[in-house]
Amino acid sequence: MSSVKINTAGEPYSGLPPILSTLAAAKVNKGLTYDAIGKAVDRDEIWVASALLGQAKMTPEELSKISQVLGVDSAALVAELGPHWFPQRGLGPSIPTDPVLYRLYEGVLVYGQAIKAVIHEKFGDGIMSMIDCEVHVDKVEVNGTERVKLTFDGKFLPYKHW
Amino acid sequence: MSSVKINTAGEPYSGLPPILSTLAAAKVNKGLTYDAIGKAVDRDEIWVASALLGQAKMTPEELSKISQVLGVDSAALVAELGPHWFPQRGLGPSIPTDPVLYRLYEGVLVYGQAIKAVIHEKFGDGIMSMIDCEVHVDKVEVNGTERVKLTFDGKFLPYKHW
Amino acid sequence: MSSVKINTAGEPYSGLPPILSTLAAAKVNKGLTYDAIGKAVDRDEIWVASALLGQAKMTPEELSKISQVLGVDSAALVAELGPHWFPQRGLGPSIPTDPVLYRLYEGVLVYGQAIKAVIHEKFGDGIMSMIDCEVHVDKVEVNGTERVKLTFDGKFLPYKHW
Amino acid sequence: MSSVKINTAGEPYSGLPPILSTLAAAKVNKGLTYDAIGKAVDRDEIWVASALLGQAKMTPEELSKISQVLGVDSAALVAELGPHWFPQRGLGPSIPTDPVLYRLYEGVLVYGQAIKAVIHEKFGDGIMSMIDCEVHVDKVEVNGTERVKLTFDGKFLPYKHW
Amino acid sequence: MSSVKINTAGEPYSGLPPILSTLAAAKVNKGLTYDAIGKAVDRDEIWVASALLGQAKMTPEELSKISQVLGVDSAALVAELGPHWFPQRGLGPSIPTDPVLYRLYEGVLVYGQAIKAVIHEKFGDGIMSMIDCEVHVDKVEVNGTERVKLTFDGKFLPYKHW
Amino acid sequence: MSSVKINTAGEPYSGLPPILSTLAAAKVNKGLTYDAIGKAVDRDEIWVASALLGQAKMTPEELSKISQVLGVDSAALVAELGPHWFPQRGLGPSIPTDPVLYRLYEGVLVYGQAIKAVIHEKFGDGIMSMIDCEVHVDKVEVNGTERVKLTFDGKFLPYKHW
Amino acid sequence: MSSVKINTAGEPYSGLPPILSTLAAAKVNKGLTYDAIGKAVDRDEIWVASALLGQAKMTPEELSKISQVLGVDSAALVAELGPHWFPQRGLGPSIPTDPVLYRLYEGVLVYGQAIKAVIHEKFGDGIMSMIDCEVHVDKVEVNGTERVKLTFDGKFLPYKHW
Amino acid sequence: MSSVKINTAGEPYSGLPPILSTLAAAKVNKGLTYDAIGKAVDRDEIWVASALLGQAKMTPEELSKISQVLGVDSAALVAELGPHWFPQRGLGPSIPTDPVLYRLYEGVLVYGQAIKAVIHEKFGDGIMSMIDCEVHVDKVEVNGTERVKLTFDGKFLPYKHW
Amino acid sequence: MSSVKINTAGEPYSGLPPILSTLAAAKVNKGLTYDAIGKAVDRDEIWVASALLGQAKMTPEELSKISQVLGVDSAALVAELGPHWFPQRGLGPSIPTDPVLYRLYEGVLVYGQAIKAVIHEKFGDGIMSMIDCEVHVDKVEVNGTERVKLTFDGKFLPYKHW
Amino acid sequence: MSSVKINTAGEPYSGLPPILSTLAAAKVNKGLTYDAIGKAVDRDEIWVASALLGQAKMTPEELSKISQVLGVDSAALVAELGPHWFPQRGLGPSIPTDPVLYRLYEGVLVYGQAIKAVIHEKFGDGIMSMIDCEVHVDKVEVNGTERVKLTFDGKFLPYKHW
Repeated sequence: MSSVKINTAGEPYSGLPPILSTLAAAKVNKGLTYDAIGKAVDRDEIWVASALLGQAKMTPEELSKISQVLGVDSAALVAELGPHWFPQRGLGPSIPTDPVLYRLYEGVLVYGQAIKAVIHEKFGDGIMSMIDCEVHVDKVEVNGTERVKLTFDGKFLPYKHW
Repeated sequence: MSSVKINTAGEPYSGLPPILSTLAAAKVNKGLTYDAIGKAVDRDEIWVASALLGQAKMTPEELSKISQVLGVDSAALVAELGPHWFPQRGLGPSIPTDPVLYRLYEGVLVYGQAIKAVIHEKFGDGIMSMIDCEVHVDKVEVNGTERVKLTFDGKFLPYKHW
Repeated sequence: MSSVKINTAGEPYSGLPPILSTLAAAKVNKGLTYDAIGKAVDRDEIWVASALLGQAKMTPEELSKISQVLGVDSAALVAELGPHWFPQRGLGPSIPTDPVLYRLYEGVLVYGQAIKAVIHEKFGDGIMSMIDCEVHVDKVEVNGTERVKLTFDGKFLPYKHW
Repeated sequence: MSSVKINTAGEPYSGLPPILSTLAAAKVNKGLTYDAIGKAVDRDEIWVASALLGQAKMTPEELSKISQVLGVDSAALVAELGPHWFPQRGLGPSIPTDPVLYRLYEGVLVYGQAIKAVIHEKFGDGIMSMIDCEVHVDKVEVNGTERVKLTFDGKFLPYKHW
Repeated sequence: MSSVKINTAGEPYSGLPPILSTLAAAKVNKGLTYDAIGKAVDRDEIWVASALLGQAKMTPEELSKISQVLGVDSAALVAELGPHWFPQRGLGPSIPTDPVLYRLYEGVLVYGQAIKAVIHEKFGDGIMSMIDCEVHVDKVEVNGTERVKLTFDGKFLPYKHW
Repeated sequence: MSSVKINTAGEPYSGLPPILSTLAAAKVNKGLTYDAIGKAVDRDEIWVASALLGQAKMTPEELSKISQVLGVDSAALVAELGPHWFPQRGLGPSIPTDPVLYRLYEGVLVYGQAIKAVIHEKFGDGIMSMIDCEVHVDKVEVNGTERVKLTFDGKFLPYKHW
Repeated sequence: MSSVKINTAGEPYSGLPPILSTLAAAKVNKGLTYDAIGKAVDRDEIWVASALLGQAKMTPEELSKISQVLGVDSAALVAELGPHWFPQRGLGPSIPTDPVLYRLYEGVLVYGQAIKAVIHEKFGDGIMSMIDCEVHVDKVEVNGTERVKLTFDGKFLPYKHW
Repeated sequence: MSSVKINTAGEPYSGLPPILSTLAAAKVNKGLTYDAIGKAVDRDEIWVASALLGQAKMTPEELSKISQVLGVDSAALVAELGPHWFPQRGLGPSIPTDPVLYRLYEGVLVYGQAIKAVIHEKFGDGIMSMIDCEVHVDKVEVNGTERVKLTFDGKFLPYKHW
Repeated sequence: MSSVKINTAGEPYSGLPPILSTLAAAKVNKGLTYDAIGKAVDRDEIWVASALLGQAKMTPEELSKISQVLGVDSAALVAELGPHWFPQRGLGPSIPTDPVLYRLYEGVLVYGQAIKAVIHEKFGDGIMSMIDCEVHVDKVEVNGTERVKLTFDGKFLPYKHW
Repeated sequence: MSSVKINTAGEPYSGLPPILSTLAAAKVNKGLTYDAIGKAVDRDEIWVASALLGQAKMTPEELSKISQVLGVDSAALVAELGPHWFPQRGLGPSIPTDPVLYRLYEGVLVYGQAIKAVIHEKFGDGIMSMIDCEVHVDKVEVNGTERVKLTFDGKFLPYKHW
């Protein structure tokens, strides 16, 4: 299926480094899942997915492993995503329209203040870091029903008094 | 500490049914945690917090238990939040400014497309429900560091073809 | 349950004529459904609901019947909603945050162009009127599952050439 | 009429996978209606229209049938819209300017709260799914007047208490 | 003046079907006014101008006449604007910046509620259709001063009660 | 009907000088049309409506006549709307939601560029003044159908070269 | 005319310190122009007008003179606008709707880049200060026509290189 | 310096007729100031700058003189900016980010209401025209400090009563 | 000066807990600087200012010291700002209009990408924490000129790979 | 590593003069830090970074030095960034999405009013200039923890009274 064509003119690839479309196509052509790539790079699938969407920075080692597992020329990867490159993080419109993304945003609108209240009650004044944070997506089956278990596991950062 | 005063002119209480401020004050005066209230109502602390912020609808039984545990007049509760009342869900500005809430929103902007990609890979075309969804906040200690574990556990809903 | 209190400071009542909150409370206290009120006024439940939310204009006859069925003083109704009053239509933020409303909005974003394409194919260049339009919400049960059947039944208006 | 040219620089095609413009041209050149394509694919015309606008995901079987009925090379279709591709749903500006789309949006602004009120009254606290939802557009003639009957038929999803 | 170049990268042509720029150039090269074209097509000049800006749909007959009067190849016209094409109506930013357009918008902001009040007083609850509507621009001279007379002549549509 | 109550908390009265609500109530109680008031003030009905909505400035003579015809205390009128007061023009949200107002706005979006093109063709580079401009709403009956004839009659202002 | 009432619920007074409405009423009741007040305070009329709108900070001496010329209690003035108070500058919506203000805004949109180009050509890389800036409005009569001469006279600030 | 390259992909040239970039380069290569061009065209430098930015319409005579002074082919100029072309006025984002432009915008936000108040006091109800308006930028030296003197000199337009 | 009145209807106090206005008045009446209060509370002046603006959470000890130094009843302070209260951080419009605040915002727009580039070069992929961050404002005199030295001193947080 | 490819289609390079991408690549290929370039140009690293991002204007001497240190043809530099060119300052969306930039913006939202309060207390009514302002980023190690020290050192500008 070498003829896979990634739509580079639309979300989420427009504006991203072009090599990421090459990687996206290679992933399909190789028939690899994010999890499989993750195992080869020794990273979680969500981290890999975010890196392949230009939302995380790969180390030289990670770039090298990505090059191997996806069969994309290492020099080309380094030329675009090497040590000089840093992500411009944040993709898409400020209010998402895609229903998958919107549901997450809705979670912030509807449950955000409740989450804030409980974080403050349990931890005090501070935040859950989105920098020192792992994100996981697991598939769980409960009584024959598939459920998505989405986890943000972030360091609590207390506000400094100075 | 019977003199607790909830700021009803600011976020998140402005616009909400006034009885919710009474409940918020009662919670403080009783010295109860969301978890303790949750246990009395047989609900999770995040659900309780969202109900006390007007983001979930309590059944008559839940209202009755809330009345008991917080010592707020049951008739007053029913008058404002009874069977006739339904939440207007969604609190605050479309782009949150509070850093706790913003970090969650940032999670959607930065990791949303990665989450979408992995959900599609694992489940196919569909979404994680934000209606049939549980939200949990847990405190975890790892090597002496406090971490917030925020979980969205929602049913996968596949797109219908018709 | 004469103590029902409508939250007039929040959506959807803030900004609406105050008598509408009185009507809302009366509806609850009388234990009437929109359908029951509709039958008394000889109107559909959705039309009644929109009138009680200040989104439709009642004729003197309709006001009179509403006064009777809800037991609200007729003069008070006429004082606020009489022949001199016309709705300021459109409620809430331009992008809804309440999940019930947002799903409808999502329907416009996701299926709007498809609906437009089929309308043009079947009717030609024109629109579905939202003025000469009936809206219905029906409850349907399919294999033990409850489904909402929402219908917009509007006159086709062809674009004039001049 | 093999020279049909689809405007790929404007709404709704800009940003969509290019093959969709090819399909749009093929549909015109073949002289097929959405309904005719739908019958060939065993799908409703609105679903077909949304799929041809990149708002629904076709299964391999559906892609194969589309390839046959529209005479577009199957490999080209799979290359762009195959199993690796998932829609980025949501088309156009957040507040539609096209009058056909705007009328639908106006329906949400004007009748949304009434619809919400009646849904809650009939079903309780929950939403009409826009995922497990069928959309239909029918042409009805009443007393010599053409009317558009637009139906959203979606599963009711009750809010979970946890 | 065969070298007329229409700026297709800016308002109002960016996003419109490319043939419209060809028509715009042909109009200049032929030295025709909208009125002259209108007479040839048997349409008003404003309707013609809106059609040449992709804001109205031409019938095959109108396309044919436009082809003749402007000397643009009929097949090319049909390829882009034929029966398969429907306008995506609405041009430019949601708040116009061009002073000519802004003044019209200002008319809506400043006089809109007064217009609404008088329409309701004279006609009852309903709207002036923008679909079954003619728009005219006339030049009037009053005491040696040029005045623009802009007329919207639209059908009154009363709100349906159902 | 002395009990008319104007909703001062909603559009269009919130934010306007309170005496305007008194005038609005007086108009209803007196049973006067804008046209009747206009004749008493020697002004057009639309101008009167805009003045009663705080969108035009009345001269002392006009205030005096309004006082007489509506039976509102002259001193009270002068206290709020006297020579010291000038309108803050522009009412409501930047994109109107009321369907009557929206149709006018839609007229700007859909026909604005065509109007601009014809104004330039007929008058040259300049604008239609919205300051030296009359607005009229007439009711016309054509073949038994009621039509709204809305006219903007504004001075053409050519751009100065300097 | 002691009964002047300033509309404190609308632009520009809502949100400003209440004493400013008292000053505004006193100005009217005293029959003083901004220029006359300016002469008493030894300031330009525009500066005075901006101070009376809460957009400039008065020194104790200026407050004292304002107290005298307008006959407003000095202590009341100091209580609200004394040394502890600093303006929150910026009034009204981000895109003005009042036509007087909009024309100024339009000047920025239409001539801003030209002004920038000439400033750079004449002065180099830098800006015109809006802090060390005087603003004047003069009335000029040219051939029997009244013209507004609005001047911004601001220090040029060159960009620092460091 | 014949190799001057104007950045046509960024503000303010993106979206403007391409010939304007040619003119901009010619101006640099000729080493001419706006003032020098203005003298050749018999226009003010700000007017020239606005014309070269597509914000003013040149007459055939002005185009001819521009062609001569800048050495740009007259036919090319007429092809893009001839009698058929009219400016789409208004450049850049609705809230400017460039500090030079922002300071002007800040002037509107901070001093706009004061300017409005003084214009009304001196002229009555009306506006300063931005159409019959001259804009000047002068360099003034005061005590060794360079100051920008920016003048808007616009006709006063009184609101019409009708 | 016991009559100091804080404007609670405008920025920055509207929406904040009312006791903060009491504290603001007490600060003025006591004639204390933020620095003096800071010394009494053993905190930096900027931290104190942010706490008095509801942007930082005071510990019971800090509340107690604030009560003493400002002479505000301790119970009243605890009632509004006690352990149950947590800041809703973020004040004012998303794009500031006050020139002091805007200049900071302009710093982000103009120098933000340069700051990002240097942070990445010096530290790698990560951010400067705004939670574990001190903010200082110092007054420096250089050659007789007063300069503001504003410092953000925040922990570097490297992005986690997982 | 001569094959470095800068992504010119995304932030921050899209819209900037193309030569800046050449400079960015040259910097990487030469293996130079901003600090090293700064030393060669006799400028601070942050100033250099902002100049390389089109946010500062280089003098001919600075351009010449940049040409030498980065090995980019001097004529090419002058052609795009020479004396005729001035920055269009301000990069990216009005509310940043990149977490590094957002934290700075958050600093304005959360601490802006506190900074304003202390500036006014220490300096009086005025602002910190963002034009006569130096920005520095220093790396500090405190107890083994890396901290970013970001300094804005700007001239205080007092508001003029006139």
